[in-house]
Amino acid sequence: MSRRLLAEALGTALLLVAVVGSGIMAEALASGNTAVALLANALATGCGLYVLITVLGPVSGAHFNPAVTLAFALRREINAGAALAYATVQIAGAVAGVWMAHLMFDLPLLQMSDTSRTGAGQWVSEVIATFGLLFTIFGGLRSAPAQVPALVAAYITGAYWFTASTSFANPAVTLARMLTDTFAGIAPAHVPAFLAAQLGGVVLASILLPRLFSARP
Amino acid sequence: MSRRLLAEALGTALLLVAVVGSGIMAEALASGNTAVALLANALATGCGLYVLITVLGPVSGAHFNPAVTLAFALRREINAGAALAYATVQIAGAVAGVWMAHLMFDLPLLQMSDTSRTGAGQWVSEVIATFGLLFTIFGGLRSAPAQVPALVAAYITGAYWFTASTSFANPAVTLARMLTDTFAGIAPAHVPAFLAAQLGGVVLASILLPRLFSARP
Amino acid sequence: MSRRLLAEALGTALLLVAVVGSGIMAEALASGNTAVALLANALATGCGLYVLITVLGPVSGAHFNPAVTLAFALRREINAGAALAYATVQIAGAVAGVWMAHLMFDLPLLQMSDTSRTGAGQWVSEVIATFGLLFTIFGGLRSAPAQVPALVAAYITGAYWFTASTSFANPAVTLARMLTDTFAGIAPAHVPAFLAAQLGGVVLASILLPRLFSARP
Amino acid sequence: MSRRLLAEALGTALLLVAVVGSGIMAEALASGNTAVALLANALATGCGLYVLITVLGPVSGAHFNPAVTLAFALRREINAGAALAYATVQIAGAVAGVWMAHLMFDLPLLQMSDTSRTGAGQWVSEVIATFGLLFTIFGGLRSAPAQVPALVAAYITGAYWFTASTSFANPAVTLARMLTDTFAGIAPAHVPAFLAAQLGGVVLASILLPRLFSARP
Repeated sequence: MSRRLLAEALGTALLLVAVVGSGIMAEALASGNTAVALLANALATGCGLYVLITVLGPVSGAHFNPAVTLAFALRREINAGAALAYATVQIAGAVAGVWMAHLMFDLPLLQMSDTSRTGAGQWVSEVIATFGLLFTIFGGLRSAPAQVPALVAAYITGAYWFTASTSFANPAVTLARMLTDTFAGIAPAHVPAFLAAQLGGVVLASILLPRLFSARP
Repeated sequence: MSRRLLAEALGTALLLVAVVGSGIMAEALASGNTAVALLANALATGCGLYVLITVLGPVSGAHFNPAVTLAFALRREINAGAALAYATVQIAGAVAGVWMAHLMFDLPLLQMSDTSRTGAGQWVSEVIATFGLLFTIFGGLRSAPAQVPALVAAYITGAYWFTASTSFANPAVTLARMLTDTFAGIAPAHVPAFLAAQLGGVVLASILLPRLFSARP
Repeated sequence: MSRRLLAEALGTALLLVAVVGSGIMAEALASGNTAVALLANALATGCGLYVLITVLGPVSGAHFNPAVTLAFALRREINAGAALAYATVQIAGAVAGVWMAHLMFDLPLLQMSDTSRTGAGQWVSEVIATFGLLFTIFGGLRSAPAQVPALVAAYITGAYWFTASTSFANPAVTLARMLTDTFAGIAPAHVPAFLAAQLGGVVLASILLPRLFSARP
Repeated sequence: MSRRLLAEALGTALLLVAVVGSGIMAEALASGNTAVALLANALATGCGLYVLITVLGPVSGAHFNPAVTLAFALRREINAGAALAYATVQIAGAVAGVWMAHLMFDLPLLQMSDTSRTGAGQWVSEVIATFGLLFTIFGGLRSAPAQVPALVAAYITGAYWFTASTSFANPAVTLARMLTDTFAGIAPAHVPAFLAAQLGGVVLASILLPRLFSARP
């Protein structure tokens, strides 16, 4: 495996460790206070993203997200073959990350989520969440490239709260979170609509962002 | 619509998504612990502001706030016509943002707040909150221009707690928050006094800040 | 009043607004969960410090603290007359800040705290807290001067938790907090020992820090 | 004692003050809500690490951790004698830090922890936690050296939540936390396995990291 693909696989795995692991810990300790659990979950995810994107950005671009890779492909900044390879290892890494979290918390490796996440509000949320993520990345790359890791971390930490879906905004993350029946899970039946909404966010961004940020600085 | 006005409209809309959306989520999950809800609300707003001001600053200046635009106009850094256009799209964007939050959380689009926010303490709070915001922006522009987005984000996150009004400090935000009967709402009858207090903060800043920061560095 | 003294007075006033105001808000909302209240109090204070030190640093040095001013005087980086003027306006500003907080929260302006803060653990805490603050400032000035505001903010946010006294570490803040019978208060009888301990921290720092950081970079 | 060793001793002592002190305070205030306590504990530790690594980095490298020192030794960036001296003062400093925390909180100096932390999940957690820390440090040194203090702080703050062991990831910290029967403690019988797992993390990092980050930038 090339160094870039290794970085995408490992980075996405560790991202899922952060999301799923902190969800398990938070739910276990919060004794029913879901707001405190989500606060911990959001902060831990933000901390993880800041580290992973800073460290692996120079190696692979630190996408960790097929929707982000697709957006780069639509801008012709990554070719189709590389994009497909990226998406493949992102999904594989994400699944491995979920299993690492289960291993750490002494839970059965193989699980299937039972958590209902469906309805118009959830889908609108995923469109907006994915659009917002691409706005943050591509806008940040123009306005303050060195701060993109901190910007993405802050965006996701906030978006846990201001979208009804807690902002999955990532098809690899969505697929992998099917495989955990813990705080972060999503029932398989509700995954396709999430993926479609995330695709909608990519399309919306590809229409709106060029109007906001001209082709040249 | 020009790119600058599009940026002001979109930025203010997303700011309201952050404020109102996180308020709805926080109240829903906090099971009556208002301090935890406000903590989430404040952090999500701070995260949103950091991203929005960093990304859109180079496009439009990232005011998202008629009080800030007025303060720039008083310093003759934006002309009256442009300032009026800014304020108009800020208010329209803010209203659209509230409705996007309602849409995401499956709530009726059109609402009117019932939340009482009145009395001398609230008004003094809004004067101080608005003064503090302008102190942060114009002081930050002199002392550490690259950090203004982080400074404003930190200021507002803190000011949720250290002012009795939770720091609206923004006429567009105040008007739009009339239109949501959720955690972040404000009853229409109490809006005019908030707007007057915010104007008071602009006046206070235009008197005090030049004494603190000389005309030239 | 000179611009530097105005900056020290205003900065210290706003620091006390942040400390006392967020304490009042936090206690009011936390319904008895003191840990949540202290979390909000610590975060709001950290946010306030980051803004105030960044913005006013270039104007006055942003001491806001007679112990810090004394430490600069011991290093002969400020003369005795200026140091005395600094300390005077810091104390006056701190008192004004407490009253501004009371005004915002509709509380009687003039109060006297009833909160017991005494005993060996508290005094050791204030020695360590003040030493740690000077370690952060003078070490930060050598290692990463541009980050001193963020370093001091992070230090105080953490020290609220890891010292038993919640880290006053500031004689002006200590004196002013006598005058509020709210979350942040300290009974007058317990103030002298706090001031002595803070002086002890300055002495300890003046002995230890030169051993850590050589005279020249 | 040389300046570098003094920095390692003092830095590790203050790190333990942050970890143990904030744990005591958090548990005392959280009235049984362990999630809130861990949130405070994690934030205070992160704040402390950011300050300590920034300030002491230029003096000693700011390892504060025998596992980190060993990793530098394996890369031949510190020689065996210096590494041994580092580890010795790190452990001594850590113990002193625990006692300083006890002193501040009026607790008996000499204690032995009773907290069970054992089982496969805990050990896997410590392998991953230590690997992640070295990934953060050595990856950060290549990608964004000026941000290493913030990266390590963010990593540990997050890892409190996303590993089942709350990420000790540090043999000096592990040994010292035997000596406190408070929130942060670990029963002596469970320490050897933690140390072995941390060694496993160092080995894993020494195998994997060179594949991710090539020898030259």
